[in-house]
Amino acid sequence: MAGNKTTALSLGILGPGLIGATLLDQLRDQAPNLKEHFRIDLRVVGIASSKIMFLDESAVDLSKWRLEYNDRGTETDLRSFISHLQQDHFGPNKAIVDCTASADVAEHYLEWLKLGIHIITPNKRANSGPLEKPFLGESCPLRIALSEVCFAWLFSLSYTDMEMIVKFTSSVRLTAGTLSYIFNNLTGDRTFSDVVKEAKAKGYTEPDPRDDLSGTDVARKVVILAREAGLKLELHDIPVHSLVPQELQDPKLSVEDFMKRLPDFDEALSSRRKEAESSDEVLRYVGVVDVLNNRGSVELKRIPKSDAFAQLNGSDNIIAFKTARYNENRLIVRGPGAGAAVTAGGVFSDILKLTSNLGAPS
Amino acid sequence: MAGNKTTALSLGILGPGLIGATLLDQLRDQAPNLKEHFRIDLRVVGIASSKIMFLDESAVDLSKWRLEYNDRGTETDLRSFISHLQQDHFGPNKAIVDCTASADVAEHYLEWLKLGIHIITPNKRANSGPLEKPFLGESCPLRIALSEVCFAWLFSLSYTDMEMIVKFTSSVRLTAGTLSYIFNNLTGDRTFSDVVKEAKAKGYTEPDPRDDLSGTDVARKVVILAREAGLKLELHDIPVHSLVPQELQDPKLSVEDFMKRLPDFDEALSSRRKEAESSDEVLRYVGVVDVLNNRGSVELKRIPKSDAFAQLNGSDNIIAFKTARYNENRLIVRGPGAGAAVTAGGVFSDILKLTSNLGAPS
Repeated sequence: MAGNKTTALSLGILGPGLIGATLLDQLRDQAPNLKEHFRIDLRVVGIASSKIMFLDESAVDLSKWRLEYNDRGTETDLRSFISHLQQDHFGPNKAIVDCTASADVAEHYLEWLKLGIHIITPNKRANSGPLEKPFLGESCPLRIALSEVCFAWLFSLSYTDMEMIVKFTSSVRLTAGTLSYIFNNLTGDRTFSDVVKEAKAKGYTEPDPRDDLSGTDVARKVVILAREAGLKLELHDIPVHSLVPQELQDPKLSVEDFMKRLPDFDEALSSRRKEAESSDEVLRYVGVVDVLNNRGSVELKRIPKSDAFAQLNGSDNIIAFKTARYNENRLIVRGPGAGAAVTAGGVFSDILKLTSNLGAPS
Repeated sequence: MAGNKTTALSLGILGPGLIGATLLDQLRDQAPNLKEHFRIDLRVVGIASSKIMFLDESAVDLSKWRLEYNDRGTETDLRSFISHLQQDHFGPNKAIVDCTASADVAEHYLEWLKLGIHIITPNKRANSGPLEKPFLGESCPLRIALSEVCFAWLFSLSYTDMEMIVKFTSSVRLTAGTLSYIFNNLTGDRTFSDVVKEAKAKGYTEPDPRDDLSGTDVARKVVILAREAGLKLELHDIPVHSLVPQELQDPKLSVEDFMKRLPDFDEALSSRRKEAESSDEVLRYVGVVDVLNNRGSVELKRIPKSDAFAQLNGSDNIIAFKTARYNENRLIVRGPGAGAAVTAGGVFSDILKLTSNLGAPS
């Protein structure tokens, strides 16, 4: 509840690509309802990609944002984008929603926070970067929501929730995104390369599937969660089991050639899988934050079929918290973890959480 | 993040029974850490049961609260309890934590909210009572956290989260508490009466297990969730499949006699269970909020073994949300859902959420 008064929030959306565009459409569909029933007034005052930006004094008409953006957009200048957002259009509350995956954009977070701008983002670059450049800390009064850490879920954790959950945690295990999809679907007589091909066709992988299969994405999540739990881990501290065969890691190898040669390596994984199956287990690609032993890892693990991690379907992701209190039975959240609608939904949920906190009485 | 300044919250704890006492001990253990690392200063200024209350001007020393409460307690007078809480001990923020299951206490919520006192409670009486006495509404600027609705979870949903999740929901299914424990453990050649006996011995049931087996507790959760989703349902609108055999429903029948006669009725459930098992299904006691069709129900259902609801262990509860976005794959939260430590942990988490929102910049 945000109280009797309406809480307004001016939003600058960076990266109107697949996720950003879906978010803009979700905002378009929900904004009238939010205003009427929840007294939350969300207004997009600017949209920018790395090339084009569109600013509007009176909030972008979201029913035709694509048209406006394409017809009236000018060359992107982040500085003027920010100073436009800073103007007192609709009250003091401002947020950048960073839907890019850009490290360059993440470089600016600290600067923007200092200007009093909240940041909401599924961009994992920021908080898994080098520790000497922290931008989250006890001195930061602003909210940064880390949707992507906990995947594309409505239950996405804000930094505040994270404090509560992770600080008391002894371990966190997770599966994530593309790799969860791949191993959930590696059943029957399907081969690894076959499922990778399918995931690529469905748009679940990066254009180059090696970006997923390398495990770096999962490792970033492990680093972010580990840091939330108070561990000082860097990305290079996390041993990562890459699923890209060494022979195919050469960046000069084209995506096409990679996909063509991948079936040659199916046998190795197939035999691991058969081995697992003969003990009533399945293979899962799992990230682990081991708080007690101060380490993280990203591994291809054998999981008993009776375990919740083995019982995933489709694009389901899962995260399990083991704590002093949730010990014998873990606390488990499971849900669809891929696709633009669901990811944008997580970001949307973080925007609402931010708004609700802005409006809290004090 | 609550910013640079320390956020203080004065707490009045009602009901220092199993859950309330556990919460007080958790506060004792965590308070120094919260103060040092999170700048959250939680101070208990009063503890009251229906009979005895103990008030302290300078915050109760939680390392010896039992002693103080028993030795220095006076006869409970809710009015002076509240006016003590209202004094400006440590700043403007006050909350009542209602750990009772009392409808009488819940009657006071609206009055306390009007005095500017937040309410945090696992007491289901309030929001599943008659609709003509609503105390939650858009005009209420204060927070009421409904730990118990979503069980005893660290992931307990505050009213704010509920807005985000439930308002867009097409259906919610849940298992809960004692009945979840009973059906999770009704495996192999065990009988219903046998598992009920075990649950009673472990303290998972009410003193009279019929209070659980009647299904009213689950129905209350269904009503609360339904109302959050905008449905105007009363408790009596929810068809409830009671597991208490009609012959044993007479309130004059003692608990001892009830337990003695329960095995006579095992056969009926056994045959339903065998029927289910022959189709690779299990029995689960499930509450459903069907938002699209404006109804709720509490039923003993047959669930395919491959379903997440069938794969629960021990005291695991589960809740599944089906929405426009979480359609094919539901969003599922699963975790231990019984026991004082876990329930008190949910309440504790709500206290932290409240504090974090109080401290948010605006």
